[in-house]
Amino acid sequence: MDTHVVIMAGGIGSRLWPVSTPDMPKQFMDVLGVGKSLIQMTVERFGSICPMEKFWVVTSEKYVGIVKEQLPGIPADNILAEPEPRNTAPCIAYACWKIAKRHPDANIVVTPSDAVVFERQRFAEDISKALEFTENSGNIVTVGITPTRPETGYGYIHAENAVEGQICKVMKFKEKPDLQTARSYLASGGFFWNAGIFVWNVRTINAQLRKFAPQIAGIMDQLSESFYTANEKDELGRLFPQCEKISIDYAVMEKSEDIYLIPDNLGWSDLGSWGTVKEHVPVDSDANVAVGGDVRMFGCRNCIVHNDSKGIAVIEGLDGYIVAKKGDNILVCRLSEEQHIKEFSELKR
Amino acid sequence: MDTHVVIMAGGIGSRLWPVSTPDMPKQFMDVLGVGKSLIQMTVERFGSICPMEKFWVVTSEKYVGIVKEQLPGIPADNILAEPEPRNTAPCIAYACWKIAKRHPDANIVVTPSDAVVFERQRFAEDISKALEFTENSGNIVTVGITPTRPETGYGYIHAENAVEGQICKVMKFKEKPDLQTARSYLASGGFFWNAGIFVWNVRTINAQLRKFAPQIAGIMDQLSESFYTANEKDELGRLFPQCEKISIDYAVMEKSEDIYLIPDNLGWSDLGSWGTVKEHVPVDSDANVAVGGDVRMFGCRNCIVHNDSKGIAVIEGLDGYIVAKKGDNILVCRLSEEQHIKEFSELKR
Repeated sequence: MDTHVVIMAGGIGSRLWPVSTPDMPKQFMDVLGVGKSLIQMTVERFGSICPMEKFWVVTSEKYVGIVKEQLPGIPADNILAEPEPRNTAPCIAYACWKIAKRHPDANIVVTPSDAVVFERQRFAEDISKALEFTENSGNIVTVGITPTRPETGYGYIHAENAVEGQICKVMKFKEKPDLQTARSYLASGGFFWNAGIFVWNVRTINAQLRKFAPQIAGIMDQLSESFYTANEKDELGRLFPQCEKISIDYAVMEKSEDIYLIPDNLGWSDLGSWGTVKEHVPVDSDANVAVGGDVRMFGCRNCIVHNDSKGIAVIEGLDGYIVAKKGDNILVCRLSEEQHIKEFSELKR
Repeated sequence: MDTHVVIMAGGIGSRLWPVSTPDMPKQFMDVLGVGKSLIQMTVERFGSICPMEKFWVVTSEKYVGIVKEQLPGIPADNILAEPEPRNTAPCIAYACWKIAKRHPDANIVVTPSDAVVFERQRFAEDISKALEFTENSGNIVTVGITPTRPETGYGYIHAENAVEGQICKVMKFKEKPDLQTARSYLASGGFFWNAGIFVWNVRTINAQLRKFAPQIAGIMDQLSESFYTANEKDELGRLFPQCEKISIDYAVMEKSEDIYLIPDNLGWSDLGSWGTVKEHVPVDSDANVAVGGDVRMFGCRNCIVHNDSKGIAVIEGLDGYIVAKKGDNILVCRLSEEQHIKEFSELKR
C-alpha cells in the first residue's frame, strides 16, 4: 500500500482572534497549551500511517515558512503553496493531481490541520481500516464523529444502521443545520459530524473530480505538465486562481453515490471557537481554563484565559468570559457573545 | 529670589499595575493618554517658577536614564540618584543639603512627580504666593487640597478659618483617617488633603531636619563634604542607606510648630489608583474611559481601558472594570476590587 497524508493548512481561524490571526492562524498556534501547535499534533496523529516523506501540506504561500519551521521532517517539496485560497476542492485537487503524477496507486488521507482528536489509538485504527477498505474497493471513506450536542456549526453525514468503528454506506451529506434540525438528528440517531477527513485512492478522487468538478479537473490537467519542474510555481500562479471556489463537500461528496463512512466517538473537535477550546482543556474547581503563561484568576468562574507570553495576566471577578492575549492584541468577551469576535476584531475603531 | 524645584520621582506606583511597574513606574508613563508622562507634566506645571537649571530630580539609580530621556532640559548633575529608597525624609534632606551647599539662600518647592493639577494657573499663583511668604517669613508653607470626598488614602491637614488661596497657620497634620473620621473632616470643614507639596527656605528645612531628624541631618553633614566631587557617588552609596527610613510628614511636619498652609481647590489628584485615573479622563456616553491605542468597547459601561500599544483591545460586556495592558502583562479587575491589584500582581502563581 502506498499511503500518503495530505494536510490542509490554509485557513485563518478568525473566531479564535487574537490568538489566531491572518499572519499566524490557529493551526500554527499552541491553542491547547500543550507545547505543540495544532498542525504538529495533526502530524503526530498520523505518524503511524506512513513515513514523513509521504506527508503533504497544502497551505497559503505566506505560511510556507511557518510550516517548514514547525514541521522540519516534511520534505520542502511536499509543501504546496496555494497562490490564493479557493476553498477545499481546488486545494485537494492540486494535492491529488500532484501525488498521482508520481504515485499513481496512492491511497490518500486528507485531513484538516486545526482539529484535535483525543481518542488517538482508536482514530489510528479507524484510519487503517478505512485505508484497507479503500485499497480493496476503490471507494471513498470519510470519518463521521458521533455527535455529543446539537451543533449547528458542522455539516452532518447520514448513515443508517451505523455501528461505531464499522464501515457503512453514506446515505446523504447534510449542510450545517438549524438548531431544530440538529436536535432531530441527535434524537433520531444515524447522523454524524463531518470532520473533513477523507480516505480515498487517488484514481477514485480524481475521477470523481473529473465527473463532478470538470472545471477544476481541467485546470489540474493543464497544471500537471509543470508539476515537479521549475515552471510549476508560475503555472500555478496563473491557473490556480481560475479554479472554481468551492468546497469538496459541495463539489463531490454531496453528489457522489458511492461514499462510505466510518462513524466513531473519537473525542474530536475542530476547536473552531473559544467555547470549543474551553471544552477540551482541563478546568479547575471553578470551571476556569488557563492556557499559556502566568495566569492568575481571582473570584472567576467559567472563564477561559489564553496568555501567549511570559507576562502576567491578572483576571479578577469574571464569570463566563474569554480573555485572550497575543502579542499586542487583547480580547475580553463573554463566551455567550463569541460569535461576534470576528466582527469586533475587524471593525475599524 | 533664588527658587529651586525638587521633584521626587522614586516611587513605583504599584496600584497602577501593569501600566506602572518597578521597571517603569507611573511617573514616567502617559497615564492620562495626553502624550506626556506625569513627570513631564509636573515639570511643565512649574515652568514659570524658575529656569530648568534650577530643577532637581531625586530618583532611584535605575530611573536616572529614563529621567534624562524624558527631561533633557534638566542638567544631568541635577538628577540625584538614591542608592536605595529610604522614604521622603532622606530624599528631601539629600536634595536640600546639596542645594544649600551652592545656593545657601535658596527657596525650594518640593513636589511629587506623579500627581496632576488641573487648575494650573491657580496652582502657579498659589506657589508664587507661598514662595513670597517663605522668602519674607522663613516659614514652611504646604499646599492643601480642598477635599471632594471622604478619601481614606490621603493624609489631611487641619487649619481653622482657612480661606481658599490664602495662607493660614496649620493646626495639625493628620495621618490617613478611617472612613468615619474622613467623613467628619469633610462635614466640619477646615481639613485639606496633604498633597506632599512643600515650599520652604533651605535654611529652614535643614534646621528643622537637624532638630527633628538629627540622625538624617548628621549623615547629610558627613555626605556634604563630597557633594559636587568625584567621591559623591561612593559616599552616597555608603551613607545614604544608613538614613532612617521615614517620611517627611512623620519626621518634620507632624512635629514642627510653625507650618503654614495655602488651601485651594486645584483639581489635584495623586492618580494613585485606576479609579482616580478614571475620574480625570473624559468619559464617553457609557461612562467608559479609553486611554492609549485602538480600544474597541461593545456593551461596556463604567470601564477604564488602558492599552499601551499599537495593538487592538476588544472589550465586550463589562460593567465597572479596569482592563489594562502594558507589554506582556494584562489586568482585568473590577474597579471595586482595585485595592487588591498590588497583591494580585505580586503573588506567585
